[in-house]
Amino acid sequence: MSDIKKVVLAYSGGLDTSIILKWLQDTYGCEVVTFTADIGQGEELEPAREKAKQFGVKEIFIDDLKEEFVRDFVFPMFRANTLYEGVYLLGTSIARPLIAKRQIEIARQVGADAVSHGATGKGNDQVRFELGYYGLEPNIKVIAPWREWDLNSREKLLAYADTHGIPVARNKRGDSPYSTDRNLLHISFEGQVLEDPWVEPNEDMFVMSVSPEQAPDKASYVEIDFEQGDAVAIDGERLSPANLLARLNQLGGENGIGRLDLVENRYVGMKSRGVYETPGGTILLTAHRAIESLTLDREVAHLKDELMPRYASLIYNGYWWSPERRMIQQMIDASQAKVTGTVRLKLYKGNVSVVGRKSDKSLFDPHIATFEEDFGAYDQADAAGFIKLNALRMRIAKRLQG
Amino acid sequence: MSDIKKVVLAYSGGLDTSIILKWLQDTYGCEVVTFTADIGQGEELEPAREKAKQFGVKEIFIDDLKEEFVRDFVFPMFRANTLYEGVYLLGTSIARPLIAKRQIEIARQVGADAVSHGATGKGNDQVRFELGYYGLEPNIKVIAPWREWDLNSREKLLAYADTHGIPVARNKRGDSPYSTDRNLLHISFEGQVLEDPWVEPNEDMFVMSVSPEQAPDKASYVEIDFEQGDAVAIDGERLSPANLLARLNQLGGENGIGRLDLVENRYVGMKSRGVYETPGGTILLTAHRAIESLTLDREVAHLKDELMPRYASLIYNGYWWSPERRMIQQMIDASQAKVTGTVRLKLYKGNVSVVGRKSDKSLFDPHIATFEEDFGAYDQADAAGFIKLNALRMRIAKRLQG
Amino acid sequence: MSDIKKVVLAYSGGLDTSIILKWLQDTYGCEVVTFTADIGQGEELEPAREKAKQFGVKEIFIDDLKEEFVRDFVFPMFRANTLYEGVYLLGTSIARPLIAKRQIEIARQVGADAVSHGATGKGNDQVRFELGYYGLEPNIKVIAPWREWDLNSREKLLAYADTHGIPVARNKRGDSPYSTDRNLLHISFEGQVLEDPWVEPNEDMFVMSVSPEQAPDKASYVEIDFEQGDAVAIDGERLSPANLLARLNQLGGENGIGRLDLVENRYVGMKSRGVYETPGGTILLTAHRAIESLTLDREVAHLKDELMPRYASLIYNGYWWSPERRMIQQMIDASQAKVTGTVRLKLYKGNVSVVGRKSDKSLFDPHIATFEEDFGAYDQADAAGFIKLNALRMRIAKRLQG
Amino acid sequence: MSDIKKVVLAYSGGLDTSIILKWLQDTYGCEVVTFTADIGQGEELEPAREKAKQFGVKEIFIDDLKEEFVRDFVFPMFRANTLYEGVYLLGTSIARPLIAKRQIEIARQVGADAVSHGATGKGNDQVRFELGYYGLEPNIKVIAPWREWDLNSREKLLAYADTHGIPVARNKRGDSPYSTDRNLLHISFEGQVLEDPWVEPNEDMFVMSVSPEQAPDKASYVEIDFEQGDAVAIDGERLSPANLLARLNQLGGENGIGRLDLVENRYVGMKSRGVYETPGGTILLTAHRAIESLTLDREVAHLKDELMPRYASLIYNGYWWSPERRMIQQMIDASQAKVTGTVRLKLYKGNVSVVGRKSDKSLFDPHIATFEEDFGAYDQADAAGFIKLNALRMRIAKRLQG
Repeated sequence: MSDIKKVVLAYSGGLDTSIILKWLQDTYGCEVVTFTADIGQGEELEPAREKAKQFGVKEIFIDDLKEEFVRDFVFPMFRANTLYEGVYLLGTSIARPLIAKRQIEIARQVGADAVSHGATGKGNDQVRFELGYYGLEPNIKVIAPWREWDLNSREKLLAYADTHGIPVARNKRGDSPYSTDRNLLHISFEGQVLEDPWVEPNEDMFVMSVSPEQAPDKASYVEIDFEQGDAVAIDGERLSPANLLARLNQLGGENGIGRLDLVENRYVGMKSRGVYETPGGTILLTAHRAIESLTLDREVAHLKDELMPRYASLIYNGYWWSPERRMIQQMIDASQAKVTGTVRLKLYKGNVSVVGRKSDKSLFDPHIATFEEDFGAYDQADAAGFIKLNALRMRIAKRLQG
Repeated sequence: MSDIKKVVLAYSGGLDTSIILKWLQDTYGCEVVTFTADIGQGEELEPAREKAKQFGVKEIFIDDLKEEFVRDFVFPMFRANTLYEGVYLLGTSIARPLIAKRQIEIARQVGADAVSHGATGKGNDQVRFELGYYGLEPNIKVIAPWREWDLNSREKLLAYADTHGIPVARNKRGDSPYSTDRNLLHISFEGQVLEDPWVEPNEDMFVMSVSPEQAPDKASYVEIDFEQGDAVAIDGERLSPANLLARLNQLGGENGIGRLDLVENRYVGMKSRGVYETPGGTILLTAHRAIESLTLDREVAHLKDELMPRYASLIYNGYWWSPERRMIQQMIDASQAKVTGTVRLKLYKGNVSVVGRKSDKSLFDPHIATFEEDFGAYDQADAAGFIKLNALRMRIAKRLQG
Repeated sequence: MSDIKKVVLAYSGGLDTSIILKWLQDTYGCEVVTFTADIGQGEELEPAREKAKQFGVKEIFIDDLKEEFVRDFVFPMFRANTLYEGVYLLGTSIARPLIAKRQIEIARQVGADAVSHGATGKGNDQVRFELGYYGLEPNIKVIAPWREWDLNSREKLLAYADTHGIPVARNKRGDSPYSTDRNLLHISFEGQVLEDPWVEPNEDMFVMSVSPEQAPDKASYVEIDFEQGDAVAIDGERLSPANLLARLNQLGGENGIGRLDLVENRYVGMKSRGVYETPGGTILLTAHRAIESLTLDREVAHLKDELMPRYASLIYNGYWWSPERRMIQQMIDASQAKVTGTVRLKLYKGNVSVVGRKSDKSLFDPHIATFEEDFGAYDQADAAGFIKLNALRMRIAKRLQG
Repeated sequence: MSDIKKVVLAYSGGLDTSIILKWLQDTYGCEVVTFTADIGQGEELEPAREKAKQFGVKEIFIDDLKEEFVRDFVFPMFRANTLYEGVYLLGTSIARPLIAKRQIEIARQVGADAVSHGATGKGNDQVRFELGYYGLEPNIKVIAPWREWDLNSREKLLAYADTHGIPVARNKRGDSPYSTDRNLLHISFEGQVLEDPWVEPNEDMFVMSVSPEQAPDKASYVEIDFEQGDAVAIDGERLSPANLLARLNQLGGENGIGRLDLVENRYVGMKSRGVYETPGGTILLTAHRAIESLTLDREVAHLKDELMPRYASLIYNGYWWSPERRMIQQMIDASQAKVTGTVRLKLYKGNVSVVGRKSDKSLFDPHIATFEEDFGAYDQADAAGFIKLNALRMRIAKRLQG
C-alpha cells in the first residue's frame, strides 16, 4: 500500500468522510487532498475547510458546481424525459459523474496518483464514481475504504472516531440515521425503517417538500419557457439553470410535489427501498414532455421513448462517461432543435397538471385536426387506402395460414 | 354499391349512429343489423333497442361485454404498464378491438357480408375498428360512412336527421359538443375549446372524477392484491375484473385522481389534443408497477420497459389483433408468473402514492440490502472486480484512442 | 385535372416512362420537364435527351449524380452495416431519396407544380419517391400514372405506345422481361419465373457478376482503407466514393461475389421475391464490419446493431428524409469518429473473407488479450467479483422464488 | 479452504483439467468427482475415465449430451437467427449452459458442495459456467483454479505436471498450441499467431472444413425441411437433431463452408481475435432465414431482428439461464408456429445460396405480388391514401417548422 503518494478524497466534511480522511492518512501514509463540491446540497461548506485543516490537509478544494451540474448534467438528462424503472428521476446518479470528473481534474492538477470516495461496497455510487474515474483517467488508482476496512458497523465507526480524535456530533451518537443524499435536484432516503418495504415513512423525514396535506388550499399556476429542449424562464423571468431549478424546487416543495417511494434494482444485483423528494424535477419532467408533445415529430418522440429506459440505466449504473451514453446523447440533443415554447402548469397539493402549451414551432395544425369543416385540408378518403394497405399482411395471413 | 346485402353496424343509439343506420339503409339498400356493446359507458342501452326497432331493424344485438373487456383487454395491457407517449392510458384504444371482434362474430352468425362503424376519417378509431375487422375476417366488406358521405359538418348532419325523421334531442341542437368516448376504463374529450392547446378545459366538462380541490381533505388508504400480474382484490375483498375496476374508478373519482390533458400524435399523421379521465386505471398502473418492483427480476423489468412504448403504439394504432402484438403479449404474460402480492396506496386529492408493498414472492432481501452488518451475505470486495471489469473497455479506449 | 401546369417527370428514356411522358401531356394537358439521373445504371443517357425532344419537351435535365449518390447516400447507409431482413443491401431503396430530392430541386427551379414517376402502385418505390417529394416540398402535387390509368397489362401498354407513335424496341415486344433496377450499388430482378419462389433463376439473367463457378480459380487479395467509417482507398490508391464503389463492383463481379435470392416483405403489405447483385457493396459491408470490430467500443457496436434493423426499415420504406432517420443517422455518424484503418480481404469464387485488420485507433490490446503471461495487465481475480455481482440477482431469485 | 468436501469438476481428460484435478485434491484436500460431456467434440472419452481413475477418482460421469445439446440449446438459438456482433454463430457460448446444468445435477446427485471448471480468468467461459452454476444452484461453491493459483504461464503448468506425475503428451511440450474449443456446432481457435489481428491463419489450422479452394468444383444441392422453426430432415430423410447437425457439418465441411475470422468483444471488457469453423450452422442459419422469409409475418420478423442482438449478447455473456433470456425465448418460440416448409440450397466452395423455398404455410401470395394483371386482388389506388397519410406528419412539419 506504500506506493500511493497523494490521494484526492471526495470530502463532505461529515463524520464518515472525516473518518476516511484519517484512515487514508494512517493506512496509506499518503498525503490527502480534499475536494468538496457544492452541488446544491444546502449545507455550509466552509466547515469542511476547517475540518480538513485540522487533519493537516494542505490542499483543499471547495468548488461551486451548481450551474455546471444543472446545465451539463441535469438538463441533458431531462431532454430524454429520463425515468429509471418508470418513476425515478435519478437525482443521485446524475451528480456522481460531475464529482468524478472534477476529482480527476484536481488529481491531475495536484499530481495525485489516487482518488477516494466514501461510497459503500453495496451501493451504486461506488460504481458511478469509479467508472467515471477510470473512464476519464485509466491509470488512476482508486481507494474505496468501505470495501477495504473492517469498520463495517456503526459501532466500529464511532469507536474509530473516538480513538482517533475525530469529533462526533451528539445527534450522530444514537440510532443510525437515514442514509441520505442531497443536491439541487433531489434528496434521497434509505435505511432504517425503510428497509421494510411495507412500512410507510414518517412525515418528519421529509426535507425539501411539505406534504400534499400541508400544501396551500389554492392552486398555483406557473409558465415555463423552453428553448431547444431546456427550460430557460419561469413566468417570463429568464433564469440561469441552477437558479431555475432552485425556483422550481421552491414551487414544487411548497405545493407538496415530487415525493416518491420506490423499491428499485441496484446495479450490484440487489433490490433496495428508497424514498425521494424531487420537487423541481417533477415539474420539469411534466413540462418538458408537454412542450415536446407540441413540437416534436411523432416518430422521433417514440424512438426517444424506446431508448429512454436504456439511457436511464446507463446513468443509473454509472456510465455517464461511456461512449454509448454520449452516442445516445447526441441523438437526443439533435432531436431538441425545435423544442421551444411555453408550458402552463397548475400546481396543487402534490399534483402537476399541464393546462396549456404553445409554441412558434408547434406541429399542432388546428386546420387539419379540427372536428369541424376543414375545407379540404385533409382528405378523409385517404384513410381508406391507408387502412387497406396496413391491413394487407394480416388479411393475407388469415387467408393463407388461417 | 348494390352488392352488399347485410351489414352489422356498431350502434350506440345516439344521433350519429342513428343517422348512419338510416343512411346505410338508404344508400346501400341493405339490411342493417345493430350491435350495441355495454363496455361500461354508463348509459342505458335499452333505448338503443327501441330506436333500432323504429328503423325497422330485425336483428338487434345488445351485449354486456364488461367482464370480457377488463379481463381480456384492460388487464393484459396493464401487465405491460402501458402508456402511450409517456402518459396516456389508452382507454379508447383498448376497447376497439373487442368491439371489432364481437362485430365480426355477429356478422358470421347472421350471415352479413359487411360491417360499419361511426368513426370519422380523421381519427384513430377507424383504423382500430378496421384493422380488427380485416385481421379477423379478411374478406369482410367495410363501410365507413364518414369517409363516404358528404355530411361533413354539423349543419348537414342535423339537416339530414330532420329530412329523414331522425329525432334530435334538444341539447344536441346547439353548439357541437365535446367529442367523447366512455367505457369502464376512461372517458375522453376532444374538440370545441380543446382545439386550442393553450386553453384550459372547464371544470364542468369532467364526468368520472371530482377535481382534486373538491376531493376529501383526508387521505384514503387502499390495499390491492395481485395474482400473476392481475389485480384480484381490494382491501381483501375478491372482485371480478369489471367490478374491481369499477371500484377503483369510484375510489379514484372521489379522490380527484386520473385526469390528463394531452397533445398526442394520431396514427393518421396529425397531432390532436385530448383530455382524459382514467381514475381507476391510474391507481392500477401505480399499483402494478409497485408489485412488480418487489417481485420482478431487474432485467425482465427493464426489457418490459423498453418494449412498452412499441406495445403501446401497437394498441394505439389498432394492431391488437396483429401477430406482433400477440407475440409481445406472450412475453409480457410469461413475465408475470410471480407478480403476486399486495400493494398499499394512499389516495389524496389527485395523488396516488405507494406507501407499502409485500409479497411471498418478494425478491427484496433485507439481509443483503441492509446498511447494517450483514454477516457475510454480501462480500463488498466483490464490487471491486465488478467495477474493474466493467471499466476495462473504457480504460483501454482512453489509453489507445485518447 | 386541368390545374396542373408543369410536371417534372423522372424519365429513364425507356418504354414505360416514354409512355408516361406522352400520357401526362395528353391527360393533363401540361408541360412536361424530364429529369434523367445518372446514378451508375450503366446506360447511355443521351438517347433520353433525344427521345424527350421528340415529345416536344423543352426543359430536359440529365445529371450525373454518381458521386453524390455514393458519398451522401450509400456511404452513410453502410456506416450502419445496414441489411434489410438480415440480408438485403437496399440497393434500390437508397437511390430513390436522391432522385426525389433532385426532382424537387428541379421543380422549384423550373416553377413546376407537380412531379411524376414511373413506379407502380404495388411496389415500394412509389412510397420512396412520394415520401421524399412530400417531405421536401409539402405542397407539391404528385402524379403516379400507374395508379391512375387503366394500362394495367403489358398488352394495353404496347397498344397505347403503338396508338401514340411511341417507338417500341423489337426485344420489348415478346414476353414481359424481368423488372430490373440498376445503379452503382446493385441491380435487382423481379417478376417472370421469379414469381415462383421455388424456381432457381437462370444464370443468363445476371449482369454485374459472373457466377462463382466462372470466377477465377485463384483468390485475389484486396486492402481497403477506411477513414471515419468510410472507405477511401483500395490497395493504397485513394479513390472518390463513386470510383471506389465502381472498383469494388469490378473486383466483386469478377469473383462471383454479391448475389442474393430473397423473399422480402414490401412496405405495402405483400411478400415478393427478388434477386440482387451487389458485388461491391457485399465487399464493403464485410470490410466495414471488420474495421469496426477493431476500433469501435463494444456497447456502441451493440447499440448500432440493435438499431440497425429499424434504420434499414426506414430506408426500405422510404423514410430517408424523415426526422427519425436523420436522428438515427446523427448517432451512427457520431460513432464513426475512430473507425479508421485498413482491412485485408480475400476474394474467391463468391466468398469475401476478412484475413486481416489494423488501425492506429485499434482497441485490441494484445498485452491484455494474450493467453501468455501478461505481467499484471489484467488481474484475473477481478473476474470473481464481476461474476458474483452479475449472478447476485439470479441467486436471490432462486433462493426466494425457487 | 478446508470447508469444501466434494467438488464436481468439468473434466476433459486433457492436460489442463488433469492438472486441475490434482491441484484440487492437493489444495482443497477434497474428493473430486469428474464429469465429462460428449457434446460432439469428436474425441474418445473413455481415456478420460482411465485418467480419472489414475487420480483416484471414485465417481466418474461420462455423458452423451449430443441430442440434448442440439435439441434444447442449438435449435432454440437458431430460431432467433442468432449472430453475435453480426457474424458469430456462438458455437462455444451455447454449449456452456448445458455443461453447467448437468454439472449442477451431478453435484446434487453426489452431494457435492462445489463445482470447478478449467476456464481462465480472462475469458467468457468462466462467466458462462458460473452464471449457470449460481443461477441453478445459488448456494453452490465455485472453484476457478485459473483465478486462484499462480500457474499463470505454460512453463509453470508443465513444471507442475512433471512434479506431480501428470503425464504430458510429447506434442504438448513445445510451443503453446492454439486454444481451441470444439463441439457439434463448431470449433474455435484463439491465441498464438492469431493474437495479431493482421495475420492470416495457416490453412493447416482448420479441422472441420476444407478450404473453398479444396472443395469440389461442382455444386451440391440440398433440401432442408423445417417444422415449427426447427430443421427435421435433409433431402427428405428425417434425422434426429444431433444427426441432422452432423450431416450438415459433413456437407458444409466438404464444401468449404462456415469459416469465420473475427475480432470480437468479450464480456470481460477486452477485444480478442478468434477463428471459427461452423459448417453446419452456417447452412442452418441461411436455411432458417429462408423458410422464415416465406412463412413469417413482416412485423414479427422485424421485431425478432431487433431483439436478436440482445438475445445474442445474453448467450455470449452467459445468461442462458437468466429470466430475461427465457422471456425472450418464449417470444421467439411462439413466433415459430408456422415456420414450416422446405428450403433448397446450393453449396459450392464456401457459398451457401438459397435457390428455392416452399411451404404449405407460405404467406407469399402470387396473385397479389404479380407484375401481371391481378384481376382486382390489389387495388393500386389504395397506395395513394397510404402514402398521403404516412407523409402527413412530414408535410405538416415542413410547413410549420420549415
